[in-house]
Amino acid sequence: MASDSRLVTLDDILASRLLMTEKLHRTPMLSSTALSERTGVSLHFKAEMFQKTGSFKPRGILNRIHKLTEAEKSKGVISISAGNAAQAVAYAAAQLGIPATVVMPEAATQSKVDATRGYGANVIQHGTGKDLLPKMREIQAEQGQIFIHPFDDLDVIAGHGTLGLEILEDVPEVDTVIVPVGGGGLISGVAAALKYRKPSIKVIGVEPVGAQAMTKSLEQNAVYHLDKSNTIADGLAAPFAGEHTLRHVQQFVDGVVLVTDDDIIAALRLILERCKILPEPSAAASFAALLSGKVSANAASGAVVCVLSGGNVDRSLLKTIL
Amino acid sequence: MASDSRLVTLDDILASRLLMTEKLHRTPMLSSTALSERTGVSLHFKAEMFQKTGSFKPRGILNRIHKLTEAEKSKGVISISAGNAAQAVAYAAAQLGIPATVVMPEAATQSKVDATRGYGANVIQHGTGKDLLPKMREIQAEQGQIFIHPFDDLDVIAGHGTLGLEILEDVPEVDTVIVPVGGGGLISGVAAALKYRKPSIKVIGVEPVGAQAMTKSLEQNAVYHLDKSNTIADGLAAPFAGEHTLRHVQQFVDGVVLVTDDDIIAALRLILERCKILPEPSAAASFAALLSGKVSANAASGAVVCVLSGGNVDRSLLKTIL
Repeated sequence: MASDSRLVTLDDILASRLLMTEKLHRTPMLSSTALSERTGVSLHFKAEMFQKTGSFKPRGILNRIHKLTEAEKSKGVISISAGNAAQAVAYAAAQLGIPATVVMPEAATQSKVDATRGYGANVIQHGTGKDLLPKMREIQAEQGQIFIHPFDDLDVIAGHGTLGLEILEDVPEVDTVIVPVGGGGLISGVAAALKYRKPSIKVIGVEPVGAQAMTKSLEQNAVYHLDKSNTIADGLAAPFAGEHTLRHVQQFVDGVVLVTDDDIIAALRLILERCKILPEPSAAASFAALLSGKVSANAASGAVVCVLSGGNVDRSLLKTIL
Repeated sequence: MASDSRLVTLDDILASRLLMTEKLHRTPMLSSTALSERTGVSLHFKAEMFQKTGSFKPRGILNRIHKLTEAEKSKGVISISAGNAAQAVAYAAAQLGIPATVVMPEAATQSKVDATRGYGANVIQHGTGKDLLPKMREIQAEQGQIFIHPFDDLDVIAGHGTLGLEILEDVPEVDTVIVPVGGGGLISGVAAALKYRKPSIKVIGVEPVGAQAMTKSLEQNAVYHLDKSNTIADGLAAPFAGEHTLRHVQQFVDGVVLVTDDDIIAALRLILERCKILPEPSAAASFAALLSGKVSANAASGAVVCVLSGGNVDRSLLKTIL
């Protein structure tokens, strides 16, 4: 898949900004006196749950679809997802006037299926996670849509990089940025943007203990496929880190730490109670790393930004977490 | 108590603004495409859960304490509350360097007691709701503090009025503003500010069916004392509307509607799921009135602002609501 082995450039990221300004929200940077005191750092949250579709995902996916040729656009796009990427593909395609098809598992949360359809996409529910890619290939062979990879793509990574630029503009004194890692698309773009602009910044990734695709890939210096995952942070349970994303993490990221589901739950509760905003478990993982000491406040001296990557959590799941 | 039977003036409200700028947050005005479509109006939320202490309360209370004479300030302040006013009195007094005592029920939520102590107040837990005022009087007789009424006070009302000014600055085209009503302090100030500045605006109050102090007071044109209240919106369960607040509501408010706890729960869930922000049940009551049709979208044509008055909801209560 990753025959193009280059890194995104600062120009790639900058080139996608106008599109973000036109089609997406500039999400707020929030701070909390109570949580800064609790953690001993000057703490800021990049609140991406307020992004269109409720997560960061449309940044990169919008950039990817926008860069299709006119001939490609006329074929429409297709993707696979059980979660935030489904809504992001549907939303981005609708914004650009392009037909979208999303293959989702039969057991996908109804609210996510409804939201994806609500943005105008054709949703096909089929099998479970492992069945999505074959089904997508089958439909693509018949109908000819362009496949949009949810994370392992240079245009997707470049679009996500705009979040890094916003962090630096809003907290110029930032020393450490903590980013949740699933397939690695978000941290690849954010870390690239930050390191191009301010090389002294530390960028730390966070994975759940139950889904260590990037940690294992870094250990063996090659893409590692998980047999299974087991975490409450479904958005971080990608079955593998990508080739592009592994390369970007190796180049730009200072380290990846692991958190438990209990760490994530404690962080989610505290953010909801003290800040009155709702992060999904995947998003709370960034603050969990700080709160649990997996990223030490000493190491993270000065201003820290935790990226809260989205807020799409089902009410029934949230009820069990509280 | 209300021997001074005047109305707050626009100058009273304007005079308190500098204090707000110095000591409190200018809370954001949020909008939601999904909820605007759902309700058929251009919908905005004044997100006062992001205010210091997690509710609107410190606006008025800060203004009240600030206006004490130096001799009064030296005596310290005392108040009674099971909820948001406790934290607001503690916070406001600390900001102004004045000692504060708050009498809270023995069964007060521990997190609220901790927060009130955390702002530096002396918390005395005693009996239940009806025991607070006698206990406060006893302490006051011994120690001489100045009593800060949580809502029925002209300086409190004037301070809350700053929220109305902010609404007009952020949504100049606003037609209808919907405000939760407990003792009536918030709506008194907000409605006064709005009507002074833009008399064509409609201001609608919302009470729970299980705590109709203001509705009953309006019916009998005199302060009505509830025997008991029964609502999930504890912040709206004031045992009576005040004399000052009744007078302001009669002068400035276009109507008060009633919502059920089920209306409130549906509204809270929808705000949390779609907007990723946490309103307390009392705050969700404003949107509940619109969502349930108690304020009709027809009547509320044009831009509507629902005041989300706070976000302090206990995790265990929230769990039962989801």
